Amino acid sequence: MNIEVLSEHTCFGGKIGFYRHQSYETKCSMRFSLFVPSKASSENLPILTYLSGLTCTEETFMIKSGGLRVASELGLIILVPDTSPRGENIPTDPDNHWDFGLGAGFYLDATQMPYSINYRMYSYVVNELPELISKNFPADINKHGIFGHSMGGHGALTIGIRNNQKYKSISAFAPICAPTLCPWGTKAFTLYLGNENALWENYDSCLLIEKLSSSEAKMRLPILIDQGLDDQFLESQLNPHLLEIAAGKNGFPIQIRRHRNYDHSYFMISTFIEDHLHHHASLLTLD
Amino acid sequence: MNIEVLSEHTCFGGKIGFYRHQSYETKCSMRFSLFVPSKASSENLPILTYLSGLTCTEETFMIKSGGLRVASELGLIILVPDTSPRGENIPTDPDNHWDFGLGAGFYLDATQMPYSINYRMYSYVVNELPELISKNFPADINKHGIFGHSMGGHGALTIGIRNNQKYKSISAFAPICAPTLCPWGTKAFTLYLGNENALWENYDSCLLIEKLSSSEAKMRLPILIDQGLDDQFLESQLNPHLLEIAAGKNGFPIQIRRHRNYDHSYFMISTFIEDHLHHHASLLTLD
Repeated sequence: MNIEVLSEHTCFGGKIGFYRHQSYETKCSMRFSLFVPSKASSENLPILTYLSGLTCTEETFMIKSGGLRVASELGLIILVPDTSPRGENIPTDPDNHWDFGLGAGFYLDATQMPYSINYRMYSYVVNELPELISKNFPADINKHGIFGHSMGGHGALTIGIRNNQKYKSISAFAPICAPTLCPWGTKAFTLYLGNENALWENYDSCLLIEKLSSSEAKMRLPILIDQGLDDQFLESQLNPHLLEIAAGKNGFPIQIRRHRNYDHSYFMISTFIEDHLHHHASLLTLD
Repeated sequence: MNIEVLSEHTCFGGKIGFYRHQSYETKCSMRFSLFVPSKASSENLPILTYLSGLTCTEETFMIKSGGLRVASELGLIILVPDTSPRGENIPTDPDNHWDFGLGAGFYLDATQMPYSINYRMYSYVVNELPELISKNFPADINKHGIFGHSMGGHGALTIGIRNNQKYKSISAFAPICAPTLCPWGTKAFTLYLGNENALWENYDSCLLIEKLSSSEAKMRLPILIDQGLDDQFLESQLNPHLLEIAAGKNGFPIQIRRHRNYDHSYFMISTFIEDHLHHHASLLTLD
């Protein structure tokens, strides 16, 4: 498989790179970024996939999170895909709004035309991209965690919960917890998935948790979530209390930390990124 | 004086804000950003002015440097001005190139029309802005350091060296060390200052150091400089070796650390920002 190097930079002794490749899932060229700590020169390292929020790209986390210092210390590779297929021929929001289409793939496999051809971010993130990375970089794909922010927090939770053999650690910053019940989610799910409720359930972390039996739920590894209480989207879009209720019913181990004064920005993420990376490192290095 | 709040965000327990005010020096509205750590609730804190490079704004450092964590721990306020006056009526590069005019004020007071009316970044940074900040925020302006990157490294060195009673600590990332001898500098100085060499000397850190007597030079506090050896501008624009030669002649204490593989980006800055903030903290808290 061909990976085109767009740029590479030394950072904390490791290498942060921006790359492009032709995706068979999304049928267009896709960009991703990858941070490989210097420790990778002697061994394959655990890998974390980070899923970004609406309007972000593969660059946002690497530039804004302040996470590379800690990833370097802990020996974690960080992989950041783009948030949607992109290009002149990729269909986007009918009204060109930023909450759907380009930059807003919602980490699902669309079933509705014209989106179903390219908007296959679920399969791209879960299957195609990890395979590409493990073949080309020193990543130990058996030690793979996933986290994300906002729409990407939704992606991390749903992908992680559905694929618990594949992802050994999960966390999220200000995730969209119940997309089937908020404006961003219902708009996206209607246009990407149509009105079939059975499909919607696959992409809603509250509903995914509710489907688990109590014995299954209690066996899961703990999920860490940070949520700012001054987040401008908390009331209208995020619904962490619904996740808490769902998890409370069957004992799914979720820790939601609520922080006074913090908002939805990367200034919140940068404050708590160190805790998240330690959360992942401790779970990924379990035997 | 009126300061308009553009946005404020909680970060590492403190507050990062983006502000706008009407400047009497540049005769236009100017933006700046300011990080105030939580420790400022009980005392006025030392303050660091950070000067950004070509094309950057008051946002760049706050978003990309990863420095707020350490500034919070050390109790340092960080102030970042924009890199030039801005607005529809502000004259810029005759060819609309990015290395002069908007985003490229070079931290000097222009003498040539049409630039001399607005391009007064030296006086703005040295006098107007610190006065504004000390009146409106909990900054101890008697403990004031200065640092910067590239064009802003040039600004920090020249401003700090010329005003050593005002700035108690200086450092720079990949600074333009001898602007009178490199393409960026000679273009900017010719258009802003004309051909008068006496004026140019005020804005060249090598020449400023050379003017000091050996006894004066040796009394100065040490300057820390980090320079990547894969910096794409090292050969053509930066000339750290000339600063080393100038400082070597009269014993001015400058430490230039050269780093293999690092380039001119904020990935370099984020790697070494912690060292710079410790350098400033140790000098600013001297009695």
